[in-house]
Amino acid sequence: MNQEDIRTLNELKILSLDMISRAGSGSPGLTLSMAPAVYTLFARHLCIRPNDPNWINRDRLVISSGKISNLIYASLHMCGFSIKKEDLMNYRTINANTPGFPEQGITPGIDITTGLPGAGVGNAVGMSLARRYYQSLVTEEDERIKLFDYDVYCLCSERDFLEGSSMEALSFAGAQKLDHLIFLYDATNMTEDGSLEYIMQDDLVKKFQGFGLYVDYLKDGSNVKDIDKAISAAKRSGKPALLILKNILGKESFNENKNIVYNRPLTVDDVANLRKKWNLFLPPFEVSKDSIIFMQKGLNDRTEKKYKKWTEMYNKANSNSNIKLQELIKSMGMNQSMLEFNSEAYKINDGYREPLRETNLKILNLITSKSKLLLGGSIDQASSCQTFINSSGMQTPKTPSGRNIYFGLRPHAMGHILNGLATSGLKVFGSTKLVYADHLKPAIRMSAIANLPVTYIFTHDTISDSEEGPVKEPIEQLSMLRTTPNLIVYRPADIMEVMGCWEVILKKNLPAALIITQNNSPKLPGSNSKLVEKGAYIIKQEKNKIDGILISSGSELLYVLQIAYDLEKVGLDIRVVSMPSMELFLGEGKEYESQILPENTKKIVIEAGNPLIWNRFATNNEHIIGLEDYGFSGRPNEILAKMGFDYESLKIKVESLLK
Amino acid sequence: MNQEDIRTLNELKILSLDMISRAGSGSPGLTLSMAPAVYTLFARHLCIRPNDPNWINRDRLVISSGKISNLIYASLHMCGFSIKKEDLMNYRTINANTPGFPEQGITPGIDITTGLPGAGVGNAVGMSLARRYYQSLVTEEDERIKLFDYDVYCLCSERDFLEGSSMEALSFAGAQKLDHLIFLYDATNMTEDGSLEYIMQDDLVKKFQGFGLYVDYLKDGSNVKDIDKAISAAKRSGKPALLILKNILGKESFNENKNIVYNRPLTVDDVANLRKKWNLFLPPFEVSKDSIIFMQKGLNDRTEKKYKKWTEMYNKANSNSNIKLQELIKSMGMNQSMLEFNSEAYKINDGYREPLRETNLKILNLITSKSKLLLGGSIDQASSCQTFINSSGMQTPKTPSGRNIYFGLRPHAMGHILNGLATSGLKVFGSTKLVYADHLKPAIRMSAIANLPVTYIFTHDTISDSEEGPVKEPIEQLSMLRTTPNLIVYRPADIMEVMGCWEVILKKNLPAALIITQNNSPKLPGSNSKLVEKGAYIIKQEKNKIDGILISSGSELLYVLQIAYDLEKVGLDIRVVSMPSMELFLGEGKEYESQILPENTKKIVIEAGNPLIWNRFATNNEHIIGLEDYGFSGRPNEILAKMGFDYESLKIKVESLLK
Repeated sequence: MNQEDIRTLNELKILSLDMISRAGSGSPGLTLSMAPAVYTLFARHLCIRPNDPNWINRDRLVISSGKISNLIYASLHMCGFSIKKEDLMNYRTINANTPGFPEQGITPGIDITTGLPGAGVGNAVGMSLARRYYQSLVTEEDERIKLFDYDVYCLCSERDFLEGSSMEALSFAGAQKLDHLIFLYDATNMTEDGSLEYIMQDDLVKKFQGFGLYVDYLKDGSNVKDIDKAISAAKRSGKPALLILKNILGKESFNENKNIVYNRPLTVDDVANLRKKWNLFLPPFEVSKDSIIFMQKGLNDRTEKKYKKWTEMYNKANSNSNIKLQELIKSMGMNQSMLEFNSEAYKINDGYREPLRETNLKILNLITSKSKLLLGGSIDQASSCQTFINSSGMQTPKTPSGRNIYFGLRPHAMGHILNGLATSGLKVFGSTKLVYADHLKPAIRMSAIANLPVTYIFTHDTISDSEEGPVKEPIEQLSMLRTTPNLIVYRPADIMEVMGCWEVILKKNLPAALIITQNNSPKLPGSNSKLVEKGAYIIKQEKNKIDGILISSGSELLYVLQIAYDLEKVGLDIRVVSMPSMELFLGEGKEYESQILPENTKKIVIEAGNPLIWNRFATNNEHIIGLEDYGFSGRPNEILAKMGFDYESLKIKVESLLK
Repeated sequence: MNQEDIRTLNELKILSLDMISRAGSGSPGLTLSMAPAVYTLFARHLCIRPNDPNWINRDRLVISSGKISNLIYASLHMCGFSIKKEDLMNYRTINANTPGFPEQGITPGIDITTGLPGAGVGNAVGMSLARRYYQSLVTEEDERIKLFDYDVYCLCSERDFLEGSSMEALSFAGAQKLDHLIFLYDATNMTEDGSLEYIMQDDLVKKFQGFGLYVDYLKDGSNVKDIDKAISAAKRSGKPALLILKNILGKESFNENKNIVYNRPLTVDDVANLRKKWNLFLPPFEVSKDSIIFMQKGLNDRTEKKYKKWTEMYNKANSNSNIKLQELIKSMGMNQSMLEFNSEAYKINDGYREPLRETNLKILNLITSKSKLLLGGSIDQASSCQTFINSSGMQTPKTPSGRNIYFGLRPHAMGHILNGLATSGLKVFGSTKLVYADHLKPAIRMSAIANLPVTYIFTHDTISDSEEGPVKEPIEQLSMLRTTPNLIVYRPADIMEVMGCWEVILKKNLPAALIITQNNSPKLPGSNSKLVEKGAYIIKQEKNKIDGILISSGSELLYVLQIAYDLEKVGLDIRVVSMPSMELFLGEGKEYESQILPENTKKIVIEAGNPLIWNRFATNNEHIIGLEDYGFSGRPNEILAKMGFDYESLKIKVESLLK
């Protein structure tokens, strides 16, 4: 390492430690072990623009190991991004742009919210896939134009590769042969609880090679020159690459290689000792002008050269006579917000009837036909979830413009990869059976926290959808999703509502879960696509006085309507409310609520899910017909009867509640 | 293969296909590809007793690939287990002992409920760990006595190794050097959506060796002789072993090697063709006497030889003068139900005050001191969750009686491994931070479905527990857990309630989630350990008339009590109800509910979680003070203030609701 590297790197370390000391929390251990890799990226490789942090062809940096946010903020600060000394001093305080874990939208230069162990690995895979997909669309129009050739780097610690979603993501990346995707793995063999000696004994090189990765093992992961060379070699490998950086947690601090430095700030003495050792006597939070100039000049020279070439190419593409190319480029800037679907444009016959997932497939294909920026996939269930884009093929290294992503049965990684695609500006969906929403929960939560407009499509939504028994039959998944903040759950009952749901999903452009039954569903009398936006509406009006209101959603609504019409014959005047989205309905406010669900009327909820969340609307808990236990293996009708959700049982219960 | 093998194996295949044909669902593809491995286990290796299916030293068979339940039921039937021809004919019908996925407690010979992709891998690891642990306890008393030397086999398909929890579990097993643990992997390269060509390109041998496994690759995974030899070699390897059986999905059927045979019954012609090809002309659901005799005689000879030796050893141990050994053996038969904790035996001073996780640590250590059948671990957070058994060390290959299991940051596998330990008769706990309940959800659900008495301990339960921001701050996890059927959630507020929770957890012996705050918690005036059993109780009685009832739990209760006492000074007469377990309270029934929460009184709920589930108790939705959005990075007090959960904000809200 030359003197400039040594000085700048050490200043970066001290600055990052100052942040932890002042905040009173953070990881000095990871700060010291990962600093050389972070420094090498910012000083030698990253092509990013401090004054234009959202340039679409910037290199992407995913900080899967969120605990080192301090190192990143300090680096961004030194590189000239809009992060001031005061911001660093306010590390981990409320309202600062320097939160504990990196959060997109809060800090310039942060591409995605991370910190959940392993999740960043999938995010990086998604970003790399986005690059290949975008470029393939450009290439289809004009193969001379290269607009997307950014690199994706992902910083990982031990925890990221212990957690299993990362291994799913690596295996996917290996099969997809994604290149210019580089994972830097800080292998300290030490975590919060101590040494990994009896905890993880993987042969790392073998394991990662097994996933189809290019693997390099650096005996000394703290040498900038070696890391630099390894990154360059990785870029040439033509494969997803993983650099194992053998490191020492908290290197050079008093407690190096002990778990005590994992999560506890260094003592004042310890930091002072490092300052002395490194001959750095600037006041806290100060870095030398030399280091600033060195970092900024390096970054600027490297990036502007690339940017200039890119701009020429971009202008060439834009002045190209190919209008489709021009439109494509324009749409890439607009991201997902340009998509729309007008449900009223389609006239549906009253006699329409088919399995709702097939209906959904048709609508999905109508929507996807309008923009290539909409794509998605499934975890080995495209055939049963039926979410295939017919006009396109499979996404593979040979067919990089394929819009159907086969994730394999990798539920954990699917969500994180979708988040990586979404944050890159693509509108994505991912499908599976509703019971696997459990596996996706961590990724769904990340979509919701970062406000990424991923649409999760869950089919097989009822107990009668599986003969395989309770393990495959969803019960509590609806309540789990509905209680997840900033996620809108849609559970349409028929074709009109499916259309309405998609219209709202595209319009709102927010994290969404769309629950689709595989039941055979007719177009329901009174159903309305436009009213989906309000979350709930009267699908069957009472005739005169209201004897009671039945509230339902999804596949149960068909029975509920039938019950209401049948009970009319015995003199009960019933209103039926369809509630395709509880969240949207709650957002409409009191006045609308009192129109739909007037006070002092009997209100009964019927839904094949956990009843607890329905107390918000039902007269009382006895007026909720739900499910509080797991299902059974059996023929569909047997299961419904056993669990009291067959037509007859429901009718008897409703009638007795109304009388 | 000899003639007897060929005939018996083919009869097993046809019988298993008959079950699918009659049920109208199942996987003929996996049935045909996995039959040779299943047959080899039942005909050559498994030591199990048809008339004594719960013998504690029986070999364990985990059917991770739950779709092949038909093959297993057919094998058990042929081996003489209490599964009749009619049971096979009733495959996948309600009330039959032959459900779609294997379910423990329903079918003799089924050790654990499976079918969730990958989960069985962790279960098998848990069962193997249980064997080693049990034997280590025996060895500690008398090293000549060998009572636990069973083998654990796990049948897996492609889906099991795509899913990431399995990789976490394998990596754990490799580090733990568990032996006599054999995974049989049906590698067909074909799943529901088709070929894995572009989906999974792992170098399987390298990958699995990377996890520290003994790996054997069988080019023809359908040859009984080869499988037999490979299993024997695996047993001698001294490592966890994985046999890759290269197979053809739906082998020999018309559509072999096509995904159509994955989930769709074969046509009548197809089955008839196989019968003809294999020269089997017995009526459906019939097997030849020769095959039955062959299977049963082989199993009997093999097992009874081992059982005789074991019985001698067992009797020797039982007549041993070592009373501790005798007690140990006795307790192993009684499983978890023998454990108890009497909270009244401990007198707590009114001035008691400490972080509740430290309190929990003390109580956990009191309880664990009473029986070695209670053990547990953490996902790299023993130091922050504080769930360490002080009287014991770390569970390692060198210290197999260590009661502290370091799972590493493998949240998905931890749950499945705990389920494997629990089904083996051990009382186990696993700890992590509450936000990671998301990762554990699939395993928690399996505990709940199979009624396994695992105790999940979740610490760091509030928004102010992390400066790392929303990613680490739980919001909706409480509602997720409380709406999971057959899981009892406990959220104690102080030391008395923590003791009470443990008393109930041990007494009920059911799946449980124990939520512990890290906040500094005093013993609360009025708190009661014995009333935890009722789920909720009056912790502060009103003086005369009730102006309102405040309902709360866990760390919020301290503020709520304080508010109630403070508002007394301005003339508001308030009752405070502590609700450490909503599930238990709901189970108490109406009468108790009306005592604690009388009708026509104002009821306000205060809990830092999603409010939707609290409508069951609050006067209306405006009377719930909860959280509907994610948290922030910041200092604890800053976060509480920003989210309206500081003392002052709460007091103002409560006062305005009461007035």
